[in-house]
Amino acid sequence: MTPPDFTQPRIDLSHGAGGRATARLIDELFRRYLDNDGLRQQNDQAVLPAPSGRLALSTDAHVISPLFFPGGDIGALAVHGTLNDVAMAGARPWYLTAAFILEEGLPLPDLERIVQGMAAAAHAAGVPVVSGDTKVVERGKGDGCFIVTTGVGAVPDGINLAGDRARPGDRILISGTLGDHGIAVLSRREHLGFDTDLVSDSAYLYPLVAAMLAVVPEIRCLRDPTRGGLATTLNELAQQSGVGMRLQASALPVRPAVRAACELLGLDPLYVANEGKLVAICPPERADTLLATMREHPLARDAALIGTVTADPRRFVTLETEFGGERLLDWLAGEQLPRIC
Amino acid sequence: MTPPDFTQPRIDLSHGAGGRATARLIDELFRRYLDNDGLRQQNDQAVLPAPSGRLALSTDAHVISPLFFPGGDIGALAVHGTLNDVAMAGARPWYLTAAFILEEGLPLPDLERIVQGMAAAAHAAGVPVVSGDTKVVERGKGDGCFIVTTGVGAVPDGINLAGDRARPGDRILISGTLGDHGIAVLSRREHLGFDTDLVSDSAYLYPLVAAMLAVVPEIRCLRDPTRGGLATTLNELAQQSGVGMRLQASALPVRPAVRAACELLGLDPLYVANEGKLVAICPPERADTLLATMREHPLARDAALIGTVTADPRRFVTLETEFGGERLLDWLAGEQLPRIC
Repeated sequence: MTPPDFTQPRIDLSHGAGGRATARLIDELFRRYLDNDGLRQQNDQAVLPAPSGRLALSTDAHVISPLFFPGGDIGALAVHGTLNDVAMAGARPWYLTAAFILEEGLPLPDLERIVQGMAAAAHAAGVPVVSGDTKVVERGKGDGCFIVTTGVGAVPDGINLAGDRARPGDRILISGTLGDHGIAVLSRREHLGFDTDLVSDSAYLYPLVAAMLAVVPEIRCLRDPTRGGLATTLNELAQQSGVGMRLQASALPVRPAVRAACELLGLDPLYVANEGKLVAICPPERADTLLATMREHPLARDAALIGTVTADPRRFVTLETEFGGERLLDWLAGEQLPRIC
Repeated sequence: MTPPDFTQPRIDLSHGAGGRATARLIDELFRRYLDNDGLRQQNDQAVLPAPSGRLALSTDAHVISPLFFPGGDIGALAVHGTLNDVAMAGARPWYLTAAFILEEGLPLPDLERIVQGMAAAAHAAGVPVVSGDTKVVERGKGDGCFIVTTGVGAVPDGINLAGDRARPGDRILISGTLGDHGIAVLSRREHLGFDTDLVSDSAYLYPLVAAMLAVVPEIRCLRDPTRGGLATTLNELAQQSGVGMRLQASALPVRPAVRAACELLGLDPLYVANEGKLVAICPPERADTLLATMREHPLARDAALIGTVTADPRRFVTLETEFGGERLLDWLAGEQLPRIC
């Protein structure tokens, strides 16, 4: 190791937070050098021509801390996180791969619990982990267990969901309550006292996606608001589509326990990670039908219509507060909750 | 963190070394819980029915230390390592995904060099990195940069390479010199004096595979002897096929610099990692043609016929020494060279 040189720019936690610094890093470094049709789509997955039909591929590194948290573990999360990114293309997930980077000293029973969690989630989803890899690094060079999963799915003909398809007038829907995952993980990590009931919403969303597309194939885009929360996801979509968005604060579903924890900790639930929720954008005339379809599904009982896509060349995402004011929901700056997924 | 409990089994470096402990971990933990057709093939990739034709998927975590070494860097290695695993199925690689786990404090110029290395390798191979992810962990919870790549390829009809197809009498060929990668990396890592000329053999092997299959489609199996070296790879193949193998020491190509470094360090070049070599097993009557085809290719100028598959229910891999003796080439025990790929 060379001694630190404070004159050159360095990676900091904000580069991995999913906010603006991440977007810049991707634009200025990864896309610059790796530019191709897949990366250029700027979705959480790449939809690609394949020998026959279209494949959806997505990869996700999971570095959540702690490894076990209320409502889940890193193994199940690594399945849900990646398969959900595949599903957000409207693709049926087919296969998973998994690579483990383990720290010397990780107790085997812990790893066993993690693999069990992964197996249970993969089995429930009906998607096999078909190939894998394991590496071990020295104590102090990792943090217990990191898992990278890659998902492969097939996109049915006629389905074309992408982040650049939102149009002014479209409606914005969310499938349920916001911030459950982030606050549940934080409560365990910080040994806070409010973790009695709150559990992560980590879940496999393809069944919900399939039900929604069966009734409303006109859906423009789907995306799961994970790292950086709903506000970050909507900023991404607004940026890609070249539109603005206006949300109604009174319409946002947030559990009282999450709201209370956020107030205590100075967090905004709109920026807290979810792992079992999706945002849907659809033409206005189909919004009521889509909302009703979602609410009939067990994964979206608390679905809500939360806002409207606007014509706004500045691509601002704004929130109408309960008191009639309006505030800007900017991109996440810095890192609110590191190691949340 | 709970305090360490020394009464329970723990992960140690041997679990990631690619030797027997790794095989046990896979059998007793990963395959136990994640069992499916893909994992059951026990190859470095899974060959699977797809909507049309067969896909080959492979994932590899790269945790090499140092990140830059003579002849390569972790970015290029992450492309070669995974694409080679896809190519060993006889598949033409189509797509790559890449997930980065970065340590807070990694200099951005270092990351840029890594992404450049990745881009150059992907471009040269003609395989795009179509999707990715970046996570950052706190200082001291990672080690600069880990990269997990996943490759997707298509296996042509009529090609069926797998580790269980070796038959007694088959010939064993290697595409070139042994141990170059491991010794080149070690020389940089340990600041040894013998690193003047030696460089890693890290290379993309699909062009060689395509040339070999075009002339000798009867090839039984291909595998790249990476972690654990040639001896470990042959033990895997012997185990899968239920055969023995006998090598001739005099036939093994090893550069004098590698041989000298191994003698100095007490290493056996048969257990040292390669990143641009492959083992091929073929029926005896096709061996001469295959060897000639390989030697015509720039990636296999030093190819050699190194041994024979034997009928041996004990599945032993043995070496006929230059002095007429015979010694057992056992599975790699423990960890000879950690963080080599």
